[in-house]
Amino acid sequence: MTFSTKIDISKLLIENYTNHRVVKLSSLKEYFSEPEKVDEILKERGDITVYEYYEKIFEGEGVNLNFGLTILYPGKVGKEYFMTRGHFHEKKAAEIYVGLEGQGLILMQSEDGRVEWQPLDQNRVVYVPPGWGHRTVNTGKERLVFFFAYPSDAGHDYEIVRAKGFAKLVLEESGRLRLADNPKYVRARGF
Amino acid sequence: MTFSTKIDISKLLIENYTNHRVVKLSSLKEYFSEPEKVDEILKERGDITVYEYYEKIFEGEGVNLNFGLTILYPGKVGKEYFMTRGHFHEKKAAEIYVGLEGQGLILMQSEDGRVEWQPLDQNRVVYVPPGWGHRTVNTGKERLVFFFAYPSDAGHDYEIVRAKGFAKLVLEESGRLRLADNPKYVRARGF
Repeated sequence: MTFSTKIDISKLLIENYTNHRVVKLSSLKEYFSEPEKVDEILKERGDITVYEYYEKIFEGEGVNLNFGLTILYPGKVGKEYFMTRGHFHEKKAAEIYVGLEGQGLILMQSEDGRVEWQPLDQNRVVYVPPGWGHRTVNTGKERLVFFFAYPSDAGHDYEIVRAKGFAKLVLEESGRLRLADNPKYVRARGF
Repeated sequence: MTFSTKIDISKLLIENYTNHRVVKLSSLKEYFSEPEKVDEILKERGDITVYEYYEKIFEGEGVNLNFGLTILYPGKVGKEYFMTRGHFHEKKAAEIYVGLEGQGLILMQSEDGRVEWQPLDQNRVVYVPPGWGHRTVNTGKERLVFFFAYPSDAGHDYEIVRAKGFAKLVLEESGRLRLADNPKYVRARGF
């Protein structure tokens, strides 16, 4: 069956979605470099939403493509910008991002530990090559909204990021963006 | 290598593209239902551009995704709206379209001859399922501009469309859109 749907920018959703996930700050505690500062925010502001996404899933014969819309809110935990959990694909498969609103970047890391990043802003397309883990970071003052698409059978490995982190942290220092080495990052075979 | 690029709406291109193709009316003559009316336009207006696209190609290990930007100009050949040639993928692979400007539709046809269509306009995502041939049609008065993405190894079969056409024509009649049976359409095994 063919399909079409609208990216509703005013309502910040994709109509007729399959999944809507809301990711709260408490669930990201161990991903930030200063978890104790997550606790401070939770006390002051409650369990705020860091990001949410709407996704349309396709299944069936052949190579299908899932797509969706993510809204990543602005904020920081200490110096570290609000970010998505990040994941690797289980299968070597690319992902495409298209920025719709806001200012951010996509932090990417190859299986052999190389780190690159690309800016993400309105009408910019970011290519995450097969085999590169990726995390989106909101480096602006407004929400970061973007479209994404990837092969439906790619699979998601969140566990490797939870266990080892990314090699770099994305920080604001003296009002400027800085990528710093992640002191907790565990360099290990395969990532 | 990671990559990012800008969809430049003011210049109607994708920066750092791999290919730019310009498709002139003369090369589409046999795709329209009234080729003699193509000749009339060629005499009056010369060999005008019907559509053009910028594409970024990715190769290498794993499932890559190519993407690009198409500009399909407004116009008609007789009653038939300006359209792309249309193609099937050689491999069963989906394609995603995102409308950026203008009004149009995507005509789709399954290998067993079912025909469906979906509107294409700003912020609408159209899903072409694996195995469905597809052609884009500009049904508006302004240019139709859209983003597309598909698996890099999908391949393109244009010949089957050239030889057999699509089962439906997209016409304007009395100022309204109508899908009509294509009298020249050859129904045959497999398409």
